[in-house]
Amino acid sequence: MDQIQSLQRPVKGTPMSLDQAMELAISEAYQGGPKVSPNPLVGSVVLDSEGRFLAAGHHEFYGGPHAEVNALKNLSNEDLKGAHVIVTLEPCAHEGKTPSCAKMIAKLPVKRVTFGLIDPNPLVAGQGAEILRKAGIEADVYESSDLKIDQEMRIRLEEVCEAFLWNFRHKKTFVALKMASSLDGQVALKSGESQWITGSESREYVHYLRSCYDGLLVGKGTIEFDNPSLNIRHPKIQKDNKVIVVDGEADLLYKFSQLKLSEVHGTENIFWCVAEDLKEEVEKKVKELPKAPRLVFVKTNVGGDLNLEDLLAQLYTQGLRSVLVEGGALTASSFVQKGLVNRIYMFQAPIIMGSGGSKSWTETVRIQEMKDKIFIQHPRYLTFGGDFMITGRIL
Amino acid sequence: MDQIQSLQRPVKGTPMSLDQAMELAISEAYQGGPKVSPNPLVGSVVLDSEGRFLAAGHHEFYGGPHAEVNALKNLSNEDLKGAHVIVTLEPCAHEGKTPSCAKMIAKLPVKRVTFGLIDPNPLVAGQGAEILRKAGIEADVYESSDLKIDQEMRIRLEEVCEAFLWNFRHKKTFVALKMASSLDGQVALKSGESQWITGSESREYVHYLRSCYDGLLVGKGTIEFDNPSLNIRHPKIQKDNKVIVVDGEADLLYKFSQLKLSEVHGTENIFWCVAEDLKEEVEKKVKELPKAPRLVFVKTNVGGDLNLEDLLAQLYTQGLRSVLVEGGALTASSFVQKGLVNRIYMFQAPIIMGSGGSKSWTETVRIQEMKDKIFIQHPRYLTFGGDFMITGRIL
Repeated sequence: MDQIQSLQRPVKGTPMSLDQAMELAISEAYQGGPKVSPNPLVGSVVLDSEGRFLAAGHHEFYGGPHAEVNALKNLSNEDLKGAHVIVTLEPCAHEGKTPSCAKMIAKLPVKRVTFGLIDPNPLVAGQGAEILRKAGIEADVYESSDLKIDQEMRIRLEEVCEAFLWNFRHKKTFVALKMASSLDGQVALKSGESQWITGSESREYVHYLRSCYDGLLVGKGTIEFDNPSLNIRHPKIQKDNKVIVVDGEADLLYKFSQLKLSEVHGTENIFWCVAEDLKEEVEKKVKELPKAPRLVFVKTNVGGDLNLEDLLAQLYTQGLRSVLVEGGALTASSFVQKGLVNRIYMFQAPIIMGSGGSKSWTETVRIQEMKDKIFIQHPRYLTFGGDFMITGRIL
Repeated sequence: MDQIQSLQRPVKGTPMSLDQAMELAISEAYQGGPKVSPNPLVGSVVLDSEGRFLAAGHHEFYGGPHAEVNALKNLSNEDLKGAHVIVTLEPCAHEGKTPSCAKMIAKLPVKRVTFGLIDPNPLVAGQGAEILRKAGIEADVYESSDLKIDQEMRIRLEEVCEAFLWNFRHKKTFVALKMASSLDGQVALKSGESQWITGSESREYVHYLRSCYDGLLVGKGTIEFDNPSLNIRHPKIQKDNKVIVVDGEADLLYKFSQLKLSEVHGTENIFWCVAEDLKEEVEKKVKELPKAPRLVFVKTNVGGDLNLEDLLAQLYTQGLRSVLVEGGALTASSFVQKGLVNRIYMFQAPIIMGSGGSKSWTETVRIQEMKDKIFIQHPRYLTFGGDFMITGRIL
């Protein structure tokens, strides 16, 4: 989920290879970033009978028309004679919030449909393709003749809807970790000071990332030190986002109305995670507060800290299918140490802070031998002004 | 000093802009990387009277012909009628190991000479250009009409001969630091284990970097733990390099002949840095050793550790004008903390090691406030396989 710059759509009539069309479809898919969850991001491109660009579209918002429908909507039957529809995910076979895409396409004079991924639901996988084939339309899974492109595109096709796939396969919340460190891996001074490590270009991108996840998660230390707004401030994005605060002992809960957070967000959008053991006490005290966030009660570990697996399970039942963990140092380290991070977005600024007087984002992570190091899979590097960012999957 | 992949020279007759020619000249200059010190890296390109590529060359080895001579050597006076010579540094006015380049060019039917930098020696700066002008040749300092290119090229023109410029301006050894860390800034486990953090592509590039510096510097911990060869193993480079070992207490000196280092290098190429206070004792003991490296005696600080400023001054007098510090963690940290690092090459692997059980490369570096952070200037990012590398100037 890391593209806000979409590929430019070519002029109608421009010849495109299948690889180019699939790449454009992926780029289109990302345009739905802020609004489609818990649905997958899906993009689609339509080529005419001669393989020339006709139209493109994406799934724009949850409950709205699917990508294929948006791509096809302005095309006539004349346009579509012998056309080739490219879509990142298998057209749906079933009627849900919207009619079946496969059935819709089956009625059109389309010649061929190529999709990037088979529907991950084994109960309906291949059914969309089957509907198309029965209507005499060729329906096949994407394959590139270039092995390297094929391999890369498979990774990108999974990535574009990775939270959805993770949710579907594991019934768990997808966790992304965003960190901003110096070149020597430090995220704040011991005093707590951390503003600013990265530059404005990086920070703008972080606001985009916030919009792509169902919730933004921080530890109470971040609130205590920075008193942040934790909203989305991006020139192209308008979204009321959800915020999750990890505050096991409810230390900050009773000061809620003094926090900037409480001014900026509706209370229904703030999820306050506290220890289950304190439930009775907390519920009583909260009644006396002028305003209060939603409460999420979480099991604790032997040491008394919140059990992060249970925390994620509670968030999943609250409908939060993906979260962006933004720190601070200890919260980030705990998620890494417990092996709960799916994707990392690591911004680094070209500065040295010195580990002698500052905090690392992995201080609770400890390996015994080099063979136990934690790998970032399929790493990709982007630069933002003088900073760079690496992103990849851990889990 | 970070290009081993040179730009391809264009086919003779290909039109080139001045910017393109200067870029090629910079790339040519880097080809001299392993062999020109203490001379500067210099590259040159010759265009014909119509601005088409004729030839290119570089300063290949210390004492050998200068870049312009190599670029011009196979061209006839016919070729050179109205030609434009582009060179990264002002053609020399004086006779040294080789004849004056300005005087040589002055005899040719060349129309114009453009050079990237004025000679840094104020006593001769501009004299090369003056000789050319007197011969009726236009001689000017490079300027791009594109402001962004102009700015970038100025940085690159300084960079290509940065060690030379630093030596000349400050009479000090240029220090580059090469580190390989995990994404969380760790360079070794607490046990000392560090092989391997980065992949083979990064490691090959490090062997190239070794060849570009007069000496490779390590602390005794690295020798103790890894017993490394510290030579240059690169498919395209043959060079007997020099090694500097920082071993203030002479702990490893007496085991010298058991170290792999002593098998791989001639003793005249190994510089062993020990505390000045131990001079008498060390000189006596060393006489009894079957073989011994060169000894460099260094002043100590109050705490008894070697004074790194003095260490660099001693190396300078030994003719080592640039060193690549390769670690370990504490040695690197000391150089950063003392503000002695000119350039950094920071390789990062897409792995997490966890700071809980490992070592940072800045553990003795401590800043009080964010405003005191150490900046990497003009950062550039390169990728090597799954790793990335940032390089830039600190000093």
